[in-house]
Amino acid sequence: MARVAAGPEIERLIQLLARLPGLGPRSARRAALHLVKKKEQLLGPLASALAETRDTIVTCDNCGNIDTMSACTLCRDPARDRSLICVVEEVGDLWALERAAVLNGLYHVLGGTLSPLDGVGPEDLFIARLVERAGAPEVTEILLALNATVEGQSTAHYLTDHLSGCNVVVSRLAHGVPIGGELDYLDEGTLAAAVKARKVM
Amino acid sequence: MARVAAGPEIERLIQLLARLPGLGPRSARRAALHLVKKKEQLLGPLASALAETRDTIVTCDNCGNIDTMSACTLCRDPARDRSLICVVEEVGDLWALERAAVLNGLYHVLGGTLSPLDGVGPEDLFIARLVERAGAPEVTEILLALNATVEGQSTAHYLTDHLSGCNVVVSRLAHGVPIGGELDYLDEGTLAAAVKARKVM
Repeated sequence: MARVAAGPEIERLIQLLARLPGLGPRSARRAALHLVKKKEQLLGPLASALAETRDTIVTCDNCGNIDTMSACTLCRDPARDRSLICVVEEVGDLWALERAAVLNGLYHVLGGTLSPLDGVGPEDLFIARLVERAGAPEVTEILLALNATVEGQSTAHYLTDHLSGCNVVVSRLAHGVPIGGELDYLDEGTLAAAVKARKVM
Repeated sequence: MARVAAGPEIERLIQLLARLPGLGPRSARRAALHLVKKKEQLLGPLASALAETRDTIVTCDNCGNIDTMSACTLCRDPARDRSLICVVEEVGDLWALERAAVLNGLYHVLGGTLSPLDGVGPEDLFIARLVERAGAPEVTEILLALNATVEGQSTAHYLTDHLSGCNVVVSRLAHGVPIGGELDYLDEGTLAAAVKARKVM
């Protein structure tokens, strides 16, 4: 067995860092050393930021977003268009859409996709609250911005069925060639969708 | 400008995570989300581990290693061979050698290499203390385990000169073909060194 040169505190820090996505055991060790070297500028602030996040973060009861209060900043924003609810799988998808700054509606984070093989049923996702929200009189459209995967699309079909009773339009994102994408590198499914949905110039 | 969906606490956490080596802005965002999702198992423990490291970590006055006490665990270990001091550039190099478990001596961490162009002179490194340690009667060998780079090697030459007054053997690591290395992928300098230092089977 390899000997350990660092104290147990640092070994524990390395093990925890190695559990972050994108860091392995070797890069976690490098990150730990970097933190120790930049004690004032990085280690201290990061420790405080993590403690603050741990102590303040909550899931929004209304939409499933994460924030330091519930309802979240987006749900409370009076400038948001309350007639449109955009349904996403994860908070990361919400962040991606907000970065694109293309929607001014509200969001609803499901917390995953239906996956019977993994034992994820409708009651494990934040679906009941979505149906409740869709029934509100001001809501006119539910945009299903789910991943274009088998799980995402079967979840979208399930939701479409369950929202059919509400007086809302249920829409989905367009499929097609990504901006900057080269046809040569695209799969047949995407190309077929792009041809089928072709537009007049 | 892209809109921000997360509160300022999380934005700050993402910015700090992005400053770790190996993480960029996108992977820092993914790491932050992962932390928030695994609040109990990962975010909390990591916050505590960082705070503990921040509060307890010190640099060993004797050898420059980092630990929670000075003198460090290695310097205090009575099982260590006090006649050999292995000089390394950074604490990461010390960790690498300890993982290899190939040395039972003490270490000395310089904290970098001489680099006149970047304004790093002998007084900026932990050299004075090394010369002091090399003068102790029990020390018989100083092994310069510096990187095989121009800076590492010129620092090694400088140290060899400055240690000539002490009654010690100054040695360096062997150059050659790395274990598992393929000749085809090695540079000419390494191959030349390996041929020059060839051994009888």
